[in-house]
Amino acid sequence: MRIAIQGELGAFSHEAAKRMLLRCEVVQCARSEEVFDRLDRGSVHAAVIPIENSLAGPVTEHLDLLLARKVFVQREFRLRIVHNLIAPRGVRLRDLQQVYSHPVALAQCRDFFRRHPKIAPVPFYDTAGSVKHIIENNLPGVAAIASRQAASVYKGKILQSGIEDDKQNFTRFFLMAKQRRIAPNANKTSIAFRLKNVPGSLFNSLSVFASRGISLSKIESRPIRGRPWEYVFYVDFMRGDDALARSALRHLKEISELVKVLGIYRAA
Amino acid sequence: MRIAIQGELGAFSHEAAKRMLLRCEVVQCARSEEVFDRLDRGSVHAAVIPIENSLAGPVTEHLDLLLARKVFVQREFRLRIVHNLIAPRGVRLRDLQQVYSHPVALAQCRDFFRRHPKIAPVPFYDTAGSVKHIIENNLPGVAAIASRQAASVYKGKILQSGIEDDKQNFTRFFLMAKQRRIAPNANKTSIAFRLKNVPGSLFNSLSVFASRGISLSKIESRPIRGRPWEYVFYVDFMRGDDALARSALRHLKEISELVKVLGIYRAA
Repeated sequence: MRIAIQGELGAFSHEAAKRMLLRCEVVQCARSEEVFDRLDRGSVHAAVIPIENSLAGPVTEHLDLLLARKVFVQREFRLRIVHNLIAPRGVRLRDLQQVYSHPVALAQCRDFFRRHPKIAPVPFYDTAGSVKHIIENNLPGVAAIASRQAASVYKGKILQSGIEDDKQNFTRFFLMAKQRRIAPNANKTSIAFRLKNVPGSLFNSLSVFASRGISLSKIESRPIRGRPWEYVFYVDFMRGDDALARSALRHLKEISELVKVLGIYRAA
Repeated sequence: MRIAIQGELGAFSHEAAKRMLLRCEVVQCARSEEVFDRLDRGSVHAAVIPIENSLAGPVTEHLDLLLARKVFVQREFRLRIVHNLIAPRGVRLRDLQQVYSHPVALAQCRDFFRRHPKIAPVPFYDTAGSVKHIIENNLPGVAAIASRQAASVYKGKILQSGIEDDKQNFTRFFLMAKQRRIAPNANKTSIAFRLKNVPGSLFNSLSVFASRGISLSKIESRPIRGRPWEYVFYVDFMRGDDALARSALRHLKEISELVKVLGIYRAA
């Protein structure tokens, strides 16, 4: 099975893909759009993308792409994120002036940067990519933050392990494919909807679920291009593809401009 | 009046501060935390921070800081964002290999990068700071994306103006101070609240407002550190400091673990 991920070998998406599928061939994409393009063209069977981190919040670009593209979420997976400070061999902690990583990873290691005020965080496009970059270019005084797997792939040395501020650091990943496929034991649904611009519309949309005793596990809002201060809402609710969920979705469609089911799957 | 902003001279926050206060001395801070520290110490009278962009969404670090720190929002302001491609004099568009800017600004000029696939976007800590950096270091083949004011401050040349994807690009700024002060014509309230973890709690919290005919203009959720998959909600509602708003807030406190009023001010 060929699985697209965004990022380099050793990225957390790579680890998540391996944990979900054991035997799979990972196809690296530089940009998230390319992941969706590959799904669309059929050059991969599925893709694994991070959707939300328990500290940093949603990966908003992926929410936007899930709405815009024809894909269907088939599984979710929660990965415990352990950040490691990785340097070329021979570089010591006290030599460091800069640490490269993805902005989300840097934000998750704020305490480390507070303890080491002489070390500047430098945003880079990817966690594992930053390790690849500093090792290949053998940059003096520079380290990177990434997964243990990235240290092993690029033969970097782990100077410190577990430098994330909070051990309660999890990322939720989606496995998605082009086809609408629903596991028989699915008990969770992800949707996106855009409301008519009338007072109380958000409250009414949530009453669709509350009045049926359906629990929401998540609500997120995203701005709409070209319509400042209007939003698309992303909701996860705890039902699979059953009669109650379908009637809730029918009800929601009556009061919405747009409803898209992003996926129906087994809760992690 | 001394006003703290995050970012260099020429940042959009600088422009917003000048538009809101006409005569003010702007104090530049490298990091957002420093802005709040300065307010706390009393080394500035007020601060201007971006809180939300109509394309990119919320500035989540600022939402977190508004909740954590003792500050009070006194005004809001909406600035139309115009992005300019700025280079050292002598550099032409066809010479460019890299464009530096803040990740949010880069994300707002995706169409530009799609039209120029040979030009790589490079994340930098600040829009105006990226102009300062490329001009001071006279980097070959490198430009930056920032405000017109940044081009003028650092004497860069504008190669292209208005390269933002969407002209409906606005950023909402807050003017905040240490003191709780409410303008007599205030008609909008920003709050943050954390719910008890029971089914239907979000719906119940919104019913506090819906049952009183109070309109919400915004809802946002942010993860809570140490409590994965639980959220703080940020809500703006269209009432000032009146009896109805106060009874709604009392009601909300009954069903919440925490309610914080972030500010009561005149809607922009």
